[in-house]
Amino acid sequence: MIDIYEIVGLLAALLTTASFVPQVYKTWKSKSADSLSLTMYLVFFVGIVLWLIYGIHLKSLAMIVANSITAVLSLLLIIFKLRYK
Amino acid sequence: MIDIYEIVGLLAALLTTASFVPQVYKTWKSKSADSLSLTMYLVFFVGIVLWLIYGIHLKSLAMIVANSITAVLSLLLIIFKLRYK
Repeated sequence: MIDIYEIVGLLAALLTTASFVPQVYKTWKSKSADSLSLTMYLVFFVGIVLWLIYGIHLKSLAMIVANSITAVLSLLLIIFKLRYK
Repeated sequence: MIDIYEIVGLLAALLTTASFVPQVYKTWKSKSADSLSLTMYLVFFVGIVLWLIYGIHLKSLAMIVANSITAVLSLLLIIFKLRYK
């Protein structure tokens, strides 16, 4: 049974994940990743993987869904950065 | 008592929050926010506030600390965006 707080968490997940999508699309479309910092995205990616582990521990559906998607999106940006330079 | 998973969460918080700081510094230093999307930061900010509410519900120290700091940082970027245009 999903309670009201789980809905708040899923809405949070939706908003913060959605705010990440335009960057991925823009980078893929323009085939340019000059203004992205590889170091920052590597740090961010490791952080998101740790959030995912933490979310699994907390049995939080919102955290597991959000951090899985964001991990894939940030990994895509890292791949784009390495490929397009 | 802080357990090993709370340390994973706090490390996650440190990494994802740290990856946000250079953008704030760069924007403040350059007094330019042309390439920042106001809509995206507003969506992101609302998402972070919801994560904070969710973290308080989960009694997660890592989520409360990380999302409080990130809320302030993203609010700063919104203020910069409105001021420097």
